[in-house]
Amino acid sequence: MKLFEPLDIAGMQIPNRIMVPAMVTHLCREDGLVTDETIARYVRYARGGAGLIVVEAMAVHHVKSGPLLRISDDTFVPGLRELARRVHDAGEAKVVPQIIHFLKVARSGWRQTVDMLSMADIDRIVDEFGAAAARAREAGFDGAELHSAHAYTLSSFLSRTNPRTDEHGGQTLEGRLRLIRRAMESARRRAGEDFPIGVRFNGEEFIKNGYTVQESRLIALRLAEMGAAYLSLSAGGKFEDAVHEPGQVLFPYSGYSGDRAMPGDWLPRGLHVHLAAEIKAFLAANGHRTPVAIAGKLSDPDDAERVVAEGKADFVAIARGLLADPDWPNKVKRGERSRIVECDYCNVCKALDGAHRPVICTLWPQGALQAPADDSASPPLEWAAGTLEATVENGRVALKWPKAAGAGYYDVFRADDFGDAGLIDALKVNHWTDGTVLGGQRYRYHVRARTAGGRAGPPSNTVDVFVPVPAERASG
Amino acid sequence: MKLFEPLDIAGMQIPNRIMVPAMVTHLCREDGLVTDETIARYVRYARGGAGLIVVEAMAVHHVKSGPLLRISDDTFVPGLRELARRVHDAGEAKVVPQIIHFLKVARSGWRQTVDMLSMADIDRIVDEFGAAAARAREAGFDGAELHSAHAYTLSSFLSRTNPRTDEHGGQTLEGRLRLIRRAMESARRRAGEDFPIGVRFNGEEFIKNGYTVQESRLIALRLAEMGAAYLSLSAGGKFEDAVHEPGQVLFPYSGYSGDRAMPGDWLPRGLHVHLAAEIKAFLAANGHRTPVAIAGKLSDPDDAERVVAEGKADFVAIARGLLADPDWPNKVKRGERSRIVECDYCNVCKALDGAHRPVICTLWPQGALQAPADDSASPPLEWAAGTLEATVENGRVALKWPKAAGAGYYDVFRADDFGDAGLIDALKVNHWTDGTVLGGQRYRYHVRARTAGGRAGPPSNTVDVFVPVPAERASG
Repeated sequence: MKLFEPLDIAGMQIPNRIMVPAMVTHLCREDGLVTDETIARYVRYARGGAGLIVVEAMAVHHVKSGPLLRISDDTFVPGLRELARRVHDAGEAKVVPQIIHFLKVARSGWRQTVDMLSMADIDRIVDEFGAAAARAREAGFDGAELHSAHAYTLSSFLSRTNPRTDEHGGQTLEGRLRLIRRAMESARRRAGEDFPIGVRFNGEEFIKNGYTVQESRLIALRLAEMGAAYLSLSAGGKFEDAVHEPGQVLFPYSGYSGDRAMPGDWLPRGLHVHLAAEIKAFLAANGHRTPVAIAGKLSDPDDAERVVAEGKADFVAIARGLLADPDWPNKVKRGERSRIVECDYCNVCKALDGAHRPVICTLWPQGALQAPADDSASPPLEWAAGTLEATVENGRVALKWPKAAGAGYYDVFRADDFGDAGLIDALKVNHWTDGTVLGGQRYRYHVRARTAGGRAGPPSNTVDVFVPVPAERASG
Repeated sequence: MKLFEPLDIAGMQIPNRIMVPAMVTHLCREDGLVTDETIARYVRYARGGAGLIVVEAMAVHHVKSGPLLRISDDTFVPGLRELARRVHDAGEAKVVPQIIHFLKVARSGWRQTVDMLSMADIDRIVDEFGAAAARAREAGFDGAELHSAHAYTLSSFLSRTNPRTDEHGGQTLEGRLRLIRRAMESARRRAGEDFPIGVRFNGEEFIKNGYTVQESRLIALRLAEMGAAYLSLSAGGKFEDAVHEPGQVLFPYSGYSGDRAMPGDWLPRGLHVHLAAEIKAFLAANGHRTPVAIAGKLSDPDDAERVVAEGKADFVAIARGLLADPDWPNKVKRGERSRIVECDYCNVCKALDGAHRPVICTLWPQGALQAPADDSASPPLEWAAGTLEATVENGRVALKWPKAAGAGYYDVFRADDFGDAGLIDALKVNHWTDGTVLGGQRYRYHVRARTAGGRAGPPSNTVDVFVPVPAERASG
């Protein structure tokens, strides 16, 4: 598989095309220091076979902001050094920190915007990115990534909605590019030209008046010209359309653009691949080979392979899929796809992030802060496959099945007559309701019990269900 | 060109693949009756060569809602009959009214939502759609179109955000489909099975928790099964993300989903074609040949031709492009593309709609309520082509040029080194500023003066501009 071919990223050799993009874990404390649980999370990814691990966003500035990592002072370096060392010791993965600056948000719903920053503030941000990149190198990371996606400072400058009227905005693309350009120059100067600096940014903003790929391809070109080691594309996740919950700080993944950044189960798979394809083609046409990564519901191994095999991106960023199962790379490589603890995009992890609670996967055993061990070596789950039953009522199909002893959770599979077949949900209870069916169609379901580590029991019987079009009322 | 091949739509023969989709004109009065200006608008489209003209949304219910057409009572039929007759007399176009039900909105920002409707209310809506379809037939229209797109009642039921818990919602696709299904059955029963009933609906909602093509293809299938004459795809335009301006009723095109419904100049051309392609392929795979139309920045003749030639849609819906120049079809057919008054997607028409003012194109002569006559027969515009001058400052290119006697407006053309070349703006003043350029690149500009009817003068000189990357500050 192309997915397991190595890739050279500005001199950083990654063993395959699988990236863990930055995902907040909330496993550290308010002091911003690396904890044992933080390290355990990233070591787990390294053992699982990921090629490039991007450690969750760490603040380049002095800030109080709940349990988020920081790289804003030399006092944070020892913990980060230990993290980098432990990841390196655990596998072949390369590891880089995502470095971030963000503006202030208040529980009232107020938030600081880029037009409130003085030139001295901006100069300080540039300096802080440079210092953070230097600390990343000092800590033994293989590179660093500038967080210029979603709702954060660099992205807000880059946005088409940047309201500044001076040379850091001014309703020009050049003005909007200025801060990221300065931050990149500062990082490269302070950390050294040979230290790979990647950039994550939005291929499309998905907000009112936001930019689209028409501009992100130009942004990509500029970043490539500046020597960005790689470009990691995301989308959306903006404050502009975030939904304010009274008494809570704005969560930038709570609006439509948040749907795009962390797409739930109702959104199409690989929904942003076209952005990477367009940007990669544009870069190539202009003589640049900067590796491009793409995120967005790519945890299906066939989808991931197709993206790299067809050259739409150089590597794939799989966040929730690797959270659910850090062994995803090794299992795919060994052809054990059926053992993967498959993300069903329920977005409990997203809700935990929004609540500033430790981010875990709901498929893990109750109370676990880390993914369970791969249980490849354990005996198969014994499930006296019971009778899966289905009833149809009011336009939905209700399924129930007997509990299986030792099951960690159950996978529900559906096949329809349109050619779609596969996992449709994963859950810990032994019943499920499907409200997404179309009347007049047949659907086939089966269920598999699974151990927490993903080992599947025998499939249940398959039920074949015809969903009638509801009878019409006499009126009208 | 495939664009000029006829199409059979459930027995309705349209002479080409060009549709004028429903566009509010605000040319009628509060009484909802057809006016002379209303008729003139549609006659103009017929003379210009459009194949199918969808008359702006007319209310099926008794409602006070500003200058909008109504079809809620037999008293409206004579005016509508005159409209249909005059359109038929003016060309080969078929003409159908878009029939709409909408809920209440208040200046406070309050709006009625579908969960506030009783079963009796819903039954009445079903009945009103049936009666309206019967009146459409009585008035001599060739068919009717159910408005199930954007922010209106049928669309709100169809939405993934439909909050009802009964059989007209219930968080099931079937529940959400129920009202459109009943309205369609009512319309077909009352107007006759041989009276073509098309449906406009969203291929994607583009709001938080909204549906995507994963569901819209199922909706399309159901509508095809029910005998919809055609499916006209739009996108977005929802109340859920509309921006409330104090003292104004919510305008459903004011949020991000409104950007998608009426995409401005910064959004890509043909941005929703992929939705049509996917839905059309899905229908075909399931044995349906229901014609599919697609909207969204398709006024470039090559783009429009490509969409139908490649079979991504059966016909194209061009709203703003045909508002700007109702003679677009005839001019394209005659190979007079350069004479088209090209829409530059400035969206002044959208702002006029939002303000409930008569919707005109800003490229028309000052004060005109209708597009100027095609001036093909008039002598060429004499423009003593002056010197186009360009200056570069702070990341933007400023252009100015001498006024041309008799010019209605000026087209500005830009070519870059990325292979993009074409109209970039159209305006009545003789200066323009480009903030979309990338530093480090060359751009070439020229300007053409045009008569109001689109006749172009000689091109100006071409200026070749290098945009430097702004010099960096010493700090950082």
